[in-house]
Amino acid sequence: MRDVVIGIDIGGTFTKYGIIDKTGHCLKENFTSTDKYQEFDMFLENLQTEIEESLVSITERVEVKAIGIGAPNGNYYSGTIENAPNLNWKGIVPFVERFKTFFPNIPVVLTNDANAAALGEMIYGGAKGMKDFIVITLGTGLGSGIVVDGKLVYGHDGFAGELGHINVKHRGRECGCGKRGCLETYVSATGLKRTVLKLMAERITESELRDYSFNDLTSKMVSEAAKKGDEIALEAFEITGRILGVKLADAVTCTSPEAIFLFGGLARAGDLLLNPTRKYMEENLFPVYRGKVKLILSDLKETNAAVLGASALAWKELEK
Amino acid sequence: MRDVVIGIDIGGTFTKYGIIDKTGHCLKENFTSTDKYQEFDMFLENLQTEIEESLVSITERVEVKAIGIGAPNGNYYSGTIENAPNLNWKGIVPFVERFKTFFPNIPVVLTNDANAAALGEMIYGGAKGMKDFIVITLGTGLGSGIVVDGKLVYGHDGFAGELGHINVKHRGRECGCGKRGCLETYVSATGLKRTVLKLMAERITESELRDYSFNDLTSKMVSEAAKKGDEIALEAFEITGRILGVKLADAVTCTSPEAIFLFGGLARAGDLLLNPTRKYMEENLFPVYRGKVKLILSDLKETNAAVLGASALAWKELEK
Repeated sequence: MRDVVIGIDIGGTFTKYGIIDKTGHCLKENFTSTDKYQEFDMFLENLQTEIEESLVSITERVEVKAIGIGAPNGNYYSGTIENAPNLNWKGIVPFVERFKTFFPNIPVVLTNDANAAALGEMIYGGAKGMKDFIVITLGTGLGSGIVVDGKLVYGHDGFAGELGHINVKHRGRECGCGKRGCLETYVSATGLKRTVLKLMAERITESELRDYSFNDLTSKMVSEAAKKGDEIALEAFEITGRILGVKLADAVTCTSPEAIFLFGGLARAGDLLLNPTRKYMEENLFPVYRGKVKLILSDLKETNAAVLGASALAWKELEK
Repeated sequence: MRDVVIGIDIGGTFTKYGIIDKTGHCLKENFTSTDKYQEFDMFLENLQTEIEESLVSITERVEVKAIGIGAPNGNYYSGTIENAPNLNWKGIVPFVERFKTFFPNIPVVLTNDANAAALGEMIYGGAKGMKDFIVITLGTGLGSGIVVDGKLVYGHDGFAGELGHINVKHRGRECGCGKRGCLETYVSATGLKRTVLKLMAERITESELRDYSFNDLTSKMVSEAAKKGDEIALEAFEITGRILGVKLADAVTCTSPEAIFLFGGLARAGDLLLNPTRKYMEENLFPVYRGKVKLILSDLKETNAAVLGASALAWKELEK
């Protein structure tokens, strides 16, 4: 009989889940629709049915010890998903309370996706053995999970680690949160695209990116153009890395981490992003921290990192 | 027999110490010179002699359980004072190691003064019962102590909590740390004075502050002028509060504290500083935190807060 946990990653379109053992080995992985379900209860019932079917399909005998969930705006303390802009279910959704009715005898825990990524990095990735580190997820937005003394920081209200909403510029770019000038409006896949558009407006330099609409443009196209020497694309990465580097230097003054991990779509740009970020971070670090903070790409494979992270949350809960 | 600890606060000019019981009652308090001693060993020997004499002078029988020290650039992990600009002893001073030779049988622990202030606030002040909060000390510079889940954040290297060196402005004001544009060059007693000078250079408005040299000017003078309606002084507080408010909003995204305490000379300006700081912090907070983070003045009396904080460090150590 093998002990396993269920890791669930709730995204706007799909919900992925996996049955995962203590070593991070995934015995079974699958996905189901999120946005097909207008009703939260219908979504949950379907998810439960699918998980039960997946469990039955495993030939080995397993015992499910806990369930961990990563969700946008997930709150660890209350087990709720609160006002998630990309989900159908509005307001405050009592996810854990409802899901526990299907699994009454095991711990069911939830946090936001970036926190889950940080736990995944700690248990299965490059942060193994580290006690103080930060994970930055660079996708449509910028998420973060902060670990202090071996524990994820949840803060007073369960919403710690929202570095995407650090203030970069007074009256800067409009952010989905209602503020202006937030870090994620500059540093994220979308932020990079916005910078490309701004540069194309300001410069007369030729660029292959001028052939794409904002909606068609992807951060991958920008990074491919940069690799071919496209000046607009290169400058966009330089600007993105500069803003990220300065703000990471600021974040270091709070918790003095051993390492900062970059994860997600935009992190795939590799050195294009890492080099300017590292340079500006070092330049702007309080001298006592210089040369001490590693800036590295996440060790986790993106395809199942979110599910792994959610399972890490479940294993962490069992340690308590 | 009463259990006590010794709290020691090392400043550039004086070193204060107190014999303090678990309730924060100070049985005896005294001070000795810091800067008279060029040699670190001479300083330590004198300090030890003075402490022993103070212990003898107490009529009640006490047992010293631990010693806590707050010092500029004090490192909790290594017990060293590292490159403190305002102390005679240069380089890395192995304070705890040497001081322990006099007190071999009890814990001797050291941290920086702002961290000690945060522990003092937690054990004896307004943060009693709080698990997540930040203390900002506003004196010559800006120090900070960050508490997460009931524990002081030391970080990977023992130097967490240096919010005074967050980057406010690229190529901004020169800072003693060697960087430019650090928060403490704008927000501190000295930062306020620099802002007053800048405003006097830019404006033609009359101001009583125009009669003072930079060296003679104090933040108290600025706050007294502001209370009388002096426009330069009022604008200086508005600017100081705006910069602090925005940066506190950023700091909240890291650890999501329940409260932020302001402590030290400049905090005595009260509402002159609190009002603009609170206004700009709220405006710049990520919406999920709005209305949740208390901004309050420290509950501790400044005269012995540093010594109380150092004693709190000692009591905390005994809890381990």
